[in-house]
Amino acid sequence: MMAAQGEGGAVAFQLEAWSRIRLERVERALELWITADAPAGSGHAAPAALVEAMRYSVLDGGKRLRPLLVLAAHEAVAASTEVGAAAALRAACAVELIHAYSLVHDDMPCMDNDVLRRGKPTVHVRFGEASALLAGDALQALAFELLTPEDGSVECATQARLCSLLARAAGSSGMAGGQAIDLASVGHKLTESELREMHQLKTGALLQGSVLMGAHCGHPSAQALAALSDYGAAIGLAFQVVDDILDVTADSSTLGKTAGKDADNDKPTYVSLMGLARSQSYAQDLLAQAHQALQRSGLAHTGALSALADMVVNRAS
Amino acid sequence: MMAAQGEGGAVAFQLEAWSRIRLERVERALELWITADAPAGSGHAAPAALVEAMRYSVLDGGKRLRPLLVLAAHEAVAASTEVGAAAALRAACAVELIHAYSLVHDDMPCMDNDVLRRGKPTVHVRFGEASALLAGDALQALAFELLTPEDGSVECATQARLCSLLARAAGSSGMAGGQAIDLASVGHKLTESELREMHQLKTGALLQGSVLMGAHCGHPSAQALAALSDYGAAIGLAFQVVDDILDVTADSSTLGKTAGKDADNDKPTYVSLMGLARSQSYAQDLLAQAHQALQRSGLAHTGALSALADMVVNRAS
Repeated sequence: MMAAQGEGGAVAFQLEAWSRIRLERVERALELWITADAPAGSGHAAPAALVEAMRYSVLDGGKRLRPLLVLAAHEAVAASTEVGAAAALRAACAVELIHAYSLVHDDMPCMDNDVLRRGKPTVHVRFGEASALLAGDALQALAFELLTPEDGSVECATQARLCSLLARAAGSSGMAGGQAIDLASVGHKLTESELREMHQLKTGALLQGSVLMGAHCGHPSAQALAALSDYGAAIGLAFQVVDDILDVTADSSTLGKTAGKDADNDKPTYVSLMGLARSQSYAQDLLAQAHQALQRSGLAHTGALSALADMVVNRAS
Repeated sequence: MMAAQGEGGAVAFQLEAWSRIRLERVERALELWITADAPAGSGHAAPAALVEAMRYSVLDGGKRLRPLLVLAAHEAVAASTEVGAAAALRAACAVELIHAYSLVHDDMPCMDNDVLRRGKPTVHVRFGEASALLAGDALQALAFELLTPEDGSVECATQARLCSLLARAAGSSGMAGGQAIDLASVGHKLTESELREMHQLKTGALLQGSVLMGAHCGHPSAQALAALSDYGAAIGLAFQVVDDILDVTADSSTLGKTAGKDADNDKPTYVSLMGLARSQSYAQDLLAQAHQALQRSGLAHTGALSALADMVVNRAS
């Protein structure tokens, strides 16, 4: 992960150092929470084989962009890092579980039929299709389980709001809806606005949802919330534009997944629609919008959010 | 649906009349809530094709046992039918969405590969495998969306508790976990306790969860909650024992799904393990346990729960 440029000559925010500490916390929590142990109050443990497939799909891989967005948005909003910290860590892990489940299902033979993910065999290749299906299903449920601890560590109102945001970001008007449009679009010509709508659902909803969930852990003002929502929308779209660019400019070993896949599958992409150069300048426009939204937020501590936006647009994989 | 016998010569509870009104309410709510309309505060509608597959899998079919258990448990606990009614209706629909998604995924070629469900072609036969996968995923998310309305109609504490119960009932220590054990058990010899563990997760967790979710909409006492938990566990297990019995005694047209499937697939069942006669008497034992639990609950209005237990054990399909 690269250190990001600060804006307007200001001292550069140390994204790498900031991220390292948060990533350790997230990895430790995921390691702890994806477990076969019986939940408190239940006599039932999860079957070890299912948990193994769930852990395989989540642990030891992934850039954890969504968890970092949750934590950065929380820190931007919260009066102190302690307020809402337990909620934010749970939200960070929950969005990663939703992301992971979507990859497991997306890689299955009836969807993208991909065999390589993060440089490893995909879950259905390693554990079989039925196990991949169930592992994905169980990861989605676990995300909501993480958001609703019964130990009093997270206020009920926050639990309810986080579940609401996550369900809407993941469902038919969010990620799953975007994947359905994607599926129907193969071999069809989309307009730019149709392509944007598809990606706002498929990728944008969960990225924006991550920002909003983090913000809601810290009791945001209406002004901050509106600005962070705009920030989330801009980087959500930018992420996908850059993904499309990387699909044609990077190789499989850098990406850790099969490159050139979208073009081979005759999937509409920003690059196929507007060409490489215009796609690259569109990504920069969206990055500028994200920075402007942070300036409108009235929040003081937006360094991590700003640096994450830079990273989304300037990443190499 | 048959009218159930009252206990001990008391006037029989009119389950059919009780159910008719509640089922109309549930069907109307499902019809309204599985929709392509953009949620409030979002500019994004769900894609019509995805919503069509979701509606196909949920509407116009199914006995709605889980929603009825939610509503019956709520009415047993609540001081009046108004208290928590909005929450109970949402919980009733949410458990049905989870049940429906599990059937959609369970019927897929990589799982049970079933082509007939409720007398209709299964979702993957009608809409294709990828759409079935996504429809199931979106139904799970929608369940949590229903539990977290942002209109103030359900207290935050209730929203949080319902999400917690549903996530745990659906996930790796519940339904999805049970299906994973089921998957691994094909062709293996299970002991009676292993078979019971599998079914407690696969079917029991969501049935028991339905009862507990309904109860939590009405602020239950600890005594009532413990008793209703026992009631839910007993009927959860009874349901599966009866399912195994019907798999060998009923025909496909009565069941609305392929009969004899488990035996053909060499799946362990209660009937294969303990024989038909002992399975039948075990189901009656579990029914008696359910009735005893209701008597221990200290609740006055358990007529519907009692009649539903009778129906679970004495059903013909």
